[in-house]
Formats: sequence, structure tokens, C-alpha cells
Amino acid sequence: MNIVKNELLYEGKAKKIYRTDDDNVLFVEYKNSATAFNGEKKAEIDGKGRLNNEISSLIFTRLHEKGIRNHFVERISETEQLIQKVTIISLEVVVRNVVAGSMSKRLGIPEGTELGQPIIEFYYKDDALGDPLITEDHIWLLKAAEPEQVEKIKSIARHVNEELQQIFAAGDVRLIDFKLEFGLDADGQVLLADEISPDTCRLWDKETNEKLDKDVFRRNLGGLTDAYEEIFKRLGGM
Amino acid sequence: MNIVKNELLYEGKAKKIYRTDDDNVLFVEYKNSATAFNGEKKAEIDGKGRLNNEISSLIFTRLHEKGIRNHFVERISETEQLIQKVTIISLEVVVRNVVAGSMSKRLGIPEGTELGQPIIEFYYKDDALGDPLITEDHIWLLKAAEPEQVEKIKSIARHVNEELQQIFAAGDVRLIDFKLEFGLDADGQVLLADEISPDTCRLWDKETNEKLDKDVFRRNLGGLTDAYEEIFKRLGGM
Ligand SMILES: Nc1ncnc2c1ncn2[C@@H]1O[C@H](COP(=O)(O)OP(=O)(O)O)[C@@H](O)[C@H]1O
Ligand SMILES: Nc1ncnc2c1ncn2[C@@H]1O[C@H](COP(=O)(O)OP(=O)(O)O)[C@@H](O)[C@H]1O
Ligand SMILES: [Mg+2]
Ligand SMILES: [Mg+2]
Repeated sequence: MNIVKNELLYEGKAKKIYRTDDDNVLFVEYKNSATAFNGEKKAEIDGKGRLNNEISSLIFTRLHEKGIRNHFVERISETEQLIQKVTIISLEVVVRNVVAGSMSKRLGIPEGTELGQPIIEFYYKDDALGDPLITEDHIWLLKAAEPEQVEKIKSIARHVNEELQQIFAAGDVRLIDFKLEFGLDADGQVLLADEISPDTCRLWDKETNEKLDKDVFRRNLGGLTDAYEEIFKRLGGM
Repeated sequence: MNIVKNELLYEGKAKKIYRTDDDNVLFVEYKNSATAFNGEKKAEIDGKGRLNNEISSLIFTRLHEKGIRNHFVERISETEQLIQKVTIISLEVVVRNVVAGSMSKRLGIPEGTELGQPIIEFYYKDDALGDPLITEDHIWLLKAAEPEQVEKIKSIARHVNEELQQIFAAGDVRLIDFKLEFGLDADGQVLLADEISPDTCRLWDKETNEKLDKDVFRRNLGGLTDAYEEIFKRLGGM
């Protein structure tokens, strides 16, 4: 592919998005910034951008192989990748296999409680509102997505969960929960987008339940890049 | 009915519940306490207990006449009524016709926005957790209710909404939103319970949109009993 990195379109908390000469393709640069609690806690961490780019590239490639369409086009460098451009749907789609984090606090259920079957939650992607949990009725009210798109999103999210659980289990890692984003491609079809990395998944060691994800940063549990390197290694990435 | 007010079983924020000689019947005394923001704001307001008891008795009687089974048995005095005992389901069921209050803040939609069709929300009735909004998946996770009970609750809530809208419209009052509680009766059937009053409904004057409900207290908008008296009068209660 003939790639030209054109002007910066958008800078988010974790990635910079650039235009390319192809209207359907975007250039992504993963940043070293770590943020938590809706941007209240911040740090620059050397190596984070590289690890998330590598891990996300590896996972999206595996999902492609498993037949799950997604926006990933190609890894370009240690910190860069090409993606298919979509119109992002303003939902954060969270799939949970085990109770942790905000769900534990919100419902008063101990962290670590196994859910008999996965639960899918929708959060409204709006930093100013603090990404609130919403119901399916709220989705149509906010005109965030059509009912058929929501059904499609849930079915893809469930499929991703099954494949991701296997991918991580092979490296003795438990997939506790994760966040997905979806967009609409040029044909108006729902497409899995954004990133899948230790920034967007809760990952615990199978034996010790050691946290190998962004909670290391949220809770000051030690070196974030050590944890992310460990995940990359267990995925067979190095 | 031969009523004996026995020992106090439970004192809530708005009502005291007493045992009677009949195991299936409880004695309720409406208090003058006003609370808001999960108990953070408090006051004693003369006449509030009387007005809520009168209004709730009147509304439950009308709902009975419309064929909606509910726990109300009989008005005993200005501040007291008899109710059928149920095992309360730990859900606050909110029906909304117009955006207001927490929904407006949560989703960033202006107060007063008409909802094309009513929206039903579930909150987990748990003061320590601050009565969080929950999804239907959370309901089964918390074992708060069975899926068939949730369907039953939604269908009763929709019916109550239709009847209540008419009852209030006859007094030139707009029903913006309201909160219901349900319980299981001695046969394990879902039964409408608790109270329906200006404490649990948002009621706006049809012409001026003047607030005639607990928001008068929440937002320091003037005399709470004046507003509640006005509602009682418009319902034909005096
Ligand atoms: N395929 C895509 N097409 C267009 N935008 C995308 C795509 N994938 C992800 N995005 C968006 O890129 C932006 C930058 O990502 P990120 O830095 O993670 O932002 P945020 O601060 O919103 O988390 C986000 O708004 C994300 O939704
Ligand atoms: N029919 C009923 N049987 C048993 N309990 C009931 C019934 N109707 C309402 N209750 C309960 O009575 C309690 C007292 O009411 P209230 O003072 O409003 O309490 P709260 O502080 O929980 O709002 C509440 O827990 C309510 O759920
Ligand atoms: Mg992001
Ligand atoms: Mg109450």
C-alpha cells in the first residue's frame, strides 16, 4: 500500500488520527499518554504507545482470521497502524465476564464474582457527561444508534468475547471485561473499530489474578509497561 | 374492618409501617419528613403527611376502579391508611413522559423535552449505593426480580402511566415522570405497592409548567404544602 501521512484530523486521549491519500483509510499513531477517571489522572509512559499498537494490531489480525470484520488494515511501525475510516457510534460497549471496577462499586458486588453468562453494557461516549451508563431506550432517545445496529453490535460483541477469551486463555490470562467501539463504514455497515489493548481490557493472570492492564496505572500497582510487555509476550508477540 | 395498630415494623424516610392483627394487612402512617438527594437534604413540613396520605389514597382508589390491582385497602384517618402486605421488590421503577431531573443531567437533554413514547427505567433500591440506575441484565444478576416479573412490572407501569396521565390531565396537570414500587403478595403475584403522591411524581401545571411536586422542596421554589394542596384540589380531593 502506498501510504502518505497527511494532516492530523483528531487527537484523542490515547491516539492521534491522520488523514491519508485514501479517503477510506486513516493513519493512527498510538501515544504514550495514560489517562484514567475521565482524564483526571494523567501520565506519559515510555513504551505504552508501542505496546498498545503492537497488541491491538495482533488482536485485530487474529479476529480477522476468526472471521470478525474490523477496521484494522495494517501495522506500519512500532507505534503506527492503518485503519479503515468509520463514523464512530457514540457508544462504549462493555462486555463483562467477571465483576470488577465500576460494576462492583455501582452494584455492591465483590470484585472477582463470576457472571454466569457475559453481560453487555452501553455507556454514552461523551466526556463532558462522564460516559454515563445508559439503557437501550436511552440509545434511541439519544439517536446514538438504530435498534438493528444495537442488535448487530451485541452479536459482534458476544462473538469477540468468545474469541478473545480463547486468545488470552492460551497465554494463561483471564479476560475479566473489555470495552469496544463500533462505527459505520462507507456502506453504512456496523464495523468493529478503535483498539483492543490492556488499556481497554481487564486482564488477570490465570493463577495469581495479578492485574496486567490499566488498573496497574489506575491503582498505582507498579510498572505499567512491565504488565503490558507481559501481555504482549503471552500473546506470542515477542 | 376491625383495625388494631400493633408494633412498628419499619420506619422509612416518608412512612411508618405497623403490624395489625391481620398478617396480610399493614398500617401505614405518613410522616411530615421531607428528604431529597438520598437523604442529604431534610426538613419537617407540617401537613405533608396528611396531603400525601390523602392523595395516595385517592389515586390508588381510582386505579382500583380502572382495574389496576394495588396494595391499598382503606383510608383510616388524615395521615393513616391500611395496605396489603407484600414483600417489596428492590427496584424503583421510573416511568418518564418528559425529560426532567436526573435524566436531563445524565444524558445532557434539556428538561422539558417530550419523549415520543414513555421510557421505563429501573433503579436498584439501595440507599447505601445511592439507588443506581441499572439495566435489565443487572436485575437478574442482583436477583432483584425474575424476567417474567420484570415483564409484568413493565406492563403494569405502562398501564398506570396511561391512567395517571388522564387522572392528572382532568386537573390540568402534566405528568412528567413518576416512581413506582412493586411487591410480591401472599400468592407470589406482582402487586403495585408503596405510594403515588407529589413526593413520587413530577407534576407541572399544564399552562405555566409551574412545578407542583417535590422539586419545590429540592430546588427551594416556595411552599411545598401549597403545591401539594393544589394537586389535591385539582384531583377533586377537597
Ligand atoms: N476506524 C476509525 N475511524 C474513525 N475514528 C476512529 C476509528 N477508530 C477509532 N476512532 C476514534 O479515534 C479517536 C481517537 O482515539 P482515542 O485517543 O482512544 O480517543 P478518546 O480520547 O475518545 O478515547 C476516538 O474518538 C475513536 O473513537
Ligand atoms: N404494601 C407494602 N408492604 C410492605 N412494605 C411496603 C409496602 N408498600 C411500601 N412498603 C415499604 O415501606 C417502606 C417505608 O416507606 P418509605 O418511608 O417511603 O421508605 P423509604 O425510606 O425506603 O422511601 C419502604 O421500604 C417501602 O418499600
Ligand atoms: Mg479511546
Ligand atoms: Mg419511599
